[in-house]
This record gives sequence, structure tokens and C-alpha cells, in this order.
Amino acid sequence: MPQPPKLPTYEDVRDAAVRIAPHAHRTPVLSSRLINEQVGADVVFKCESFQRMGAFKFRGAFNALSRFTAEQRRAGVVAYSSGNHAQAVALSARLLDIPATIVMPYDAPASKVAATKGYGGQVVSYDRYTEDSEEITRTLAADRGLTLIPPYDHADVIAGQGTVAKELFEEVGDLDALFVPLGGGGLLSGTALAARALSPDCRLHGVEPEAGNDGQQSLSQGAIVRIDTPKTIADGAQTQHLGTRTFEIIRREVTAIHTATDDELVEAMRMFASLMKLVVEPTGCLGFAAVRKLSAQLRGQRVGVIISGGNIDPARFASLLG
Amino acid sequence: MPQPPKLPTYEDVRDAAVRIAPHAHRTPVLSSRLINEQVGADVVFKCESFQRMGAFKFRGAFNALSRFTAEQRRAGVVAYSSGNHAQAVALSARLLDIPATIVMPYDAPASKVAATKGYGGQVVSYDRYTEDSEEITRTLAADRGLTLIPPYDHADVIAGQGTVAKELFEEVGDLDALFVPLGGGGLLSGTALAARALSPDCRLHGVEPEAGNDGQQSLSQGAIVRIDTPKTIADGAQTQHLGTRTFEIIRREVTAIHTATDDELVEAMRMFASLMKLVVEPTGCLGFAAVRKLSAQLRGQRVGVIISGGNIDPARFASLLG
Repeated sequence: MPQPPKLPTYEDVRDAAVRIAPHAHRTPVLSSRLINEQVGADVVFKCESFQRMGAFKFRGAFNALSRFTAEQRRAGVVAYSSGNHAQAVALSARLLDIPATIVMPYDAPASKVAATKGYGGQVVSYDRYTEDSEEITRTLAADRGLTLIPPYDHADVIAGQGTVAKELFEEVGDLDALFVPLGGGGLLSGTALAARALSPDCRLHGVEPEAGNDGQQSLSQGAIVRIDTPKTIADGAQTQHLGTRTFEIIRREVTAIHTATDDELVEAMRMFASLMKLVVEPTGCLGFAAVRKLSAQLRGQRVGVIISGGNIDPARFASLLG
Repeated sequence: MPQPPKLPTYEDVRDAAVRIAPHAHRTPVLSSRLINEQVGADVVFKCESFQRMGAFKFRGAFNALSRFTAEQRRAGVVAYSSGNHAQAVALSARLLDIPATIVMPYDAPASKVAATKGYGGQVVSYDRYTEDSEEITRTLAADRGLTLIPPYDHADVIAGQGTVAKELFEEVGDLDALFVPLGGGGLLSGTALAARALSPDCRLHGVEPEAGNDGQQSLSQGAIVRIDTPKTIADGAQTQHLGTRTFEIIRREVTAIHTATDDELVEAMRMFASLMKLVVEPTGCLGFAAVRKLSAQLRGQRVGVIISGGNIDPARFASLLG
């Protein structure tokens, strides 16, 4: 019988925080009186849209790459991603002087492909509706001796993502509830490690696109459910399944998983632009979209929301808001 | 001969900072590595888009209203504004429990009219292309015993706006140059007071819409030049002339006044959205638009830019970016 993978702990999150500190931004926590009035709760937003390369993914990628041996560094890293993880690995690799190869879908947002190349990453394209990115990546890794850093199912990646919530709790103290975008579960499981250590009674909510609610199904069935690549504007959460590691942590620690429709994401995006002057990518709107729907049960509470990223083409942003 | 009006000093800026501290945000100073690479300089952005009611104007209005006598408070305040000053006076009045009447053009952005009413301000509309807002406002003030707080030509307003640059210099130290949006000159003259005290060698640049370059003309002629209301997307800088007080300070302290076209403002707006994930209103883009044009002479320097506000309808924002 195969051993279950070793899960990261809060100690790993703390170590990751030390490792990324010289390069990652400590992102701002913002709030809006008008949003608080509308929701009827005290809502704080941790803005990873202001993280380097525009999303939290830099934390996990940099943490993972900074643990490479000298031999791994020389050979290089390979990663697959619909976007933000790609940029995160490419930028981390550049900072650490490691060659990077990134497997990206043909229809990834142009801004994300351009940014990945801009950071010096070599991009290999594939069709996300017919080809298997993981298989392509594993083949590249084997053929060229590259180290594969997956977007979420990796202890060092999860620990790195956990530093978002660590900073949030350190800044705002205990919360009653925390809402986190959910794709493959790296951010949510890392958040869970930090929350249990720093605000043990905080209820944790994952939020995924309604078109791809594999997380919700997995939690209710008690096993990882696989789905087809969902069609949603939340391109950072178009994952087909949770990871072995992320699912183990999520099933243990997460209170509930909610969904948001594309229309709800656009409305949240419009409110971020109008009331907080923030450009937030659709995936980054998941947490707030759920808070708006659940406001009746959050009344009077202290609620945290992680804005996971802000990488969206201005023209795309305009067409969604227009 | 009439006495020239008494001009505010840096002491007044310091007093204003103490007065507004319990209510105003200390706004973040942000930067972008990609913008620094493109401009070839070290550029810091003071983000008044995150100020209360979405623009720096709150500072000057709150400072002015907080100096009202008990009698003035009871009678109320009246103000005219194309938008942000209106919201600033309305919000300050609400916080200080003072009745507010605001004279606004019919074609002011819907979001600004709605916000002004939302703060409890009573709105009186007029046609900015045929009617004189100052005269309407003076009549209201005389008839109803209200205290008129003009949008820029007022010592307490100028001193309040000066707190933006005071915070910026306190946070980043000396700068080689600072670029400031210019409408009636309240922000620029207040900035000059702070700059001379805190970074005496910093060159000060005002930036106004190309369609309404009365500031540039005034500086070159040595007297206040009046123009027709300019047609520009920079609705916060559609002023017809500088104020007596703001012009005196600007002529003494400002190095140069530049202009930006609407197209240049849209391009700056697009870069703010794409590279910094910020929603900035057209007027707030004036400083950065000038920096982009003058990058050859700013190479290697430490440059500050004041982003004056972020109040723009999402639909309007989308149509400009689309």
C-alpha cells in the first residue's frame, strides 16, 4: 500500500514566511465602510492582487524553488498552469537563477502568457480541453531532468500559500470566518494551516466556480471527485480535481465549500472597482461573491476575504464590466 | 487697494494633519517594478484613490469644516464642485453634523452625484457650460446664511490638501521631482508648502488637461488666465482658472506645468489597471501621463506621482479601456 504523502504543518508555513520575506510583498489589508454597511459585517480584504506578479502564487512557488538542491537549480524547473502559477514559477526561477519551462494552455489569458515570457520562462502550449497538462509536464521533466513543481499539490507550495493567512491574522487578529478562493486547494489548505494556529475558532470557507464544484462534491463524498475542465471566467480555478495533500487538509479543517456563478463574480468585480478602486481578476472575486450571498448569516461578525489576484487583461476587464 | 489674501504656510499643513488624522486615511505609497523599468526611474505613487470618498479632496474639506464656529455649524455649508469636492464636503459635513448644500453640474458623473447624496448632501444642479456655479453658490450662501467652502481657493482647503505630500515625504524621504494633477491648484499649492519644508530641492510639476491649459498660460503670463470650461475626460480638472491664493503659491514654487491629452490619460489608466491593479479616474492619471512623456529627463531619478482619486463609474471606466 502506498504511504499517504507527508502533509505540511504550520511550522512549514512559518519557515516559508522567513524564506520569502526578502522577495515577497507583505500585501495590504483593505476595507470599505460602504461594503461593511451593505454586508452588515466587518469585512477585511487581504489583497494579493498587490503581490509580486499580481497573485498569491508567488509565495508558494518561491518557497518551493528556494529549497532546490544545487543540482536541481542547474537542471531547471518545469511547471504547468493556466496562468498565475506559471508567472510565479518563472519569476521565482529568475530571482533564483534557475531555468524555467512552463506548460500553458493555448487559451490562457494573453497578459499571463506575456508576463511568463517576460520573466524569462520558456512557454510550451497545449489544448486544455483535449490534452493532459500533467502528463505533458511529467514527460518534459523525465526527458530533461527537470524538477516538476505542481501548482498546488506540493508541501512547499501549500506552506508558501499559507503565509497569506499568516500575515492576515497577524495584522487583524481573530476572525469569525474566512473566505478563500478554491481551485486545486493550495491557497485554502495553506490558509487552514495558518488559521488553526493563529485563530483556531475561525470558520473556513472555500469558494469555487459553480461550473466546477468538484471541491464541494469531494467534501460531501469524502473522496476526490474529478470533473471536466469547467468553463468559467474564473480562469485561476478551472481545475479538474483537488490534490491528495490539499484534500486531506481541506476535509479536516474546512467548514464548507460554496460556489459563485460568473454573473456573481462580475458583480463582485464591479463592486471592487467602484467601491474599493481595485482591479481584481474573476478568480479573486470568489470569496467576496460568497460573502455577499451569505450576508444574513454573517451579520455583525468579523469576516476575512482573500483576494487571490488581479491579473486580467484591461480589455477583458472592460468587456466584463461594460 | 485690496489686500492680497493671507496665504497658508507649512504650519497650517501640520495643523491640518492633526485635525484630519482621526478621520482621514493615511493612504498607501505603491510602486511597480515594471513601471520603473519602462520609465527608467524610481517612481513612487501616493494613492489618494484609497482616501475616504475616493479622492484627496476629503482632506481639505474636512480641515476647513472642522474650523467652523458653532454658529457656522448650525447654519450649514455650501459648496460647488464637478464631483470630488462635493462628496468631500458632504462627507465631512456628515461627520461633523453640519447641514450641506452642494451645487453640481447636470453632467457630473453619476457615481459622484449619487455618492454626494448618499453622504446626506442636498444637491442643486446647474449647466456648467452656460451658468456660473460660483455666482449660484454665492447667492445661496447669502440668502441662507451658509458658509461657502470653495473647492480650492481657500487657505484651510489648501493646507488640508498639503497633507498628501507631507505623508508622502515622511514615508519616502527626499524626491528629485514630484508630479501633481492640476485643476484649480489646491492640491498643487498645498503640495508646494509641504515640499518646500520637507524636500526643499524637489522640483514640482503640475499637470493639467491639454484641452484646458489655463495653468500653463497663467504661469507664462504671470497672471491668472481664464478659459472656457474645457472638454476633457479629466472631469476633476475642468476648471476655468486658478485661484488667487493657489496661483500665488504656484508661481513662486512650481518648476513647470505640463499637459496631457485624453488619449494619454486613457493609456496611463490602462497601465494602472494592468500593472498596478488600480482603478484611477482620468484626473488621477495626469501626473503619470506626464512622467511617461518626460521619462528621458527623469532617468535614474527618484520621482513622486500623486494619484489624486479613483472615482469613476465602472461602466465609464470600461468604455474608456475597451
